[in-house]
Amino acid sequence: MKKISDSTIQRLSKYYRTLSNLLEKEIKTISSKEIAHINNITSAQVRKDLSFFGTFGKRGLGYNVIELRDQISRILGLQKKWNVGLVGFGNIGHALVQYDEFKKQGFNIIAIFDNDQKKCGKEINELVVSHISEAQRIVKDKEIEIIIIAVPAKFAQSLVEKFVEYGVRAFLNFAPSSIKVPENVLVKNENMSIELEALSFFLTNR
Amino acid sequence: MKKISDSTIQRLSKYYRTLSNLLEKEIKTISSKEIAHINNITSAQVRKDLSFFGTFGKRGLGYNVIELRDQISRILGLQKKWNVGLVGFGNIGHALVQYDEFKKQGFNIIAIFDNDQKKCGKEINELVVSHISEAQRIVKDKEIEIIIIAVPAKFAQSLVEKFVEYGVRAFLNFAPSSIKVPENVLVKNENMSIELEALSFFLTNR
Repeated sequence: MKKISDSTIQRLSKYYRTLSNLLEKEIKTISSKEIAHINNITSAQVRKDLSFFGTFGKRGLGYNVIELRDQISRILGLQKKWNVGLVGFGNIGHALVQYDEFKKQGFNIIAIFDNDQKKCGKEINELVVSHISEAQRIVKDKEIEIIIIAVPAKFAQSLVEKFVEYGVRAFLNFAPSSIKVPENVLVKNENMSIELEALSFFLTNR
Repeated sequence: MKKISDSTIQRLSKYYRTLSNLLEKEIKTISSKEIAHINNITSAQVRKDLSFFGTFGKRGLGYNVIELRDQISRILGLQKKWNVGLVGFGNIGHALVQYDEFKKQGFNIIAIFDNDQKKCGKEINELVVSHISEAQRIVKDKEIEIIIIAVPAKFAQSLVEKFVEYGVRAFLNFAPSSIKVPENVLVKNENMSIELEALSFFLTNR
């Protein structure tokens, strides 16, 4: 499993969305060509991405939408509910707590941490903001597996190190800073400028 | 230029960041191998991505960091300042207006629109929230080229259509809905669940 590229995983996420949309429209089967067309890639790419994980679909008949969606869901670990903690209750933090898509996808924010005493004790979505000094206990009690970092860049590295000590292995980082972690830990950076740069490229080169 | 893939453009954004970080550390030259290592891909991929745009670096000497960064900046259109409008002044909208990285990268949010009269007239970062009914005039007056959509999913499609009428060709969409546009228009979707799904994959398959 170690050789699966980040791009393949990203595309699996996209196929998952495509299939979910098809299900809503009650479409039952789909070809790799159609999946490819919707996602603006080649059908060979679709088949290759899926081939890493076994054999899907029947030659000439395409894929069963429900089955393929469930299989991708299992590959991505989306049939599980994930316990997520949020660190930093500023603007981005506020937006994330109220971003319904996370919960829909099985990512439940069940703890919020901040270092500002004024924010601690505040309630939002039936959650109470906790002081960061309580993080170790809460991570353990609530079995938190993923931490979202939404703090200023200068605090990100040391916070991640703290949570690695507490046993967390997966981080989503909104701070604009690259973070160093041990090999058995994964940090994904959410860089909101990247999509804007794709728009810039499009407008510049059209 | 039409055959450059989304993945290549995304990687160019990453190389741009890598080179900017190196510049801050006053590192003057770098090999494709080192760029590849930092970004967790192959050096062949780095060379291939760059080859679309000409010849860079000297065999055996690597790349001049400043030159390569400037060249990528030009390819991505980042030496220009882009006039950006934000539609929707909810939580995500608030976070985006205060997200300093956009401005640093040359994406200046210079107009905010909402359909809620209570929000109109509010001031933030020396900007005043305008009613959506004023959008056509403001897009023209302020020469807005990119629109960020941060509204509930059900409003996204019709809003994009409106702004396409007003002449906007590039959209960054935070609403969890896929949007149909004419061929000469580009919508990039910012789906914040995708990186979480990569973490889910990592935790599931380690």
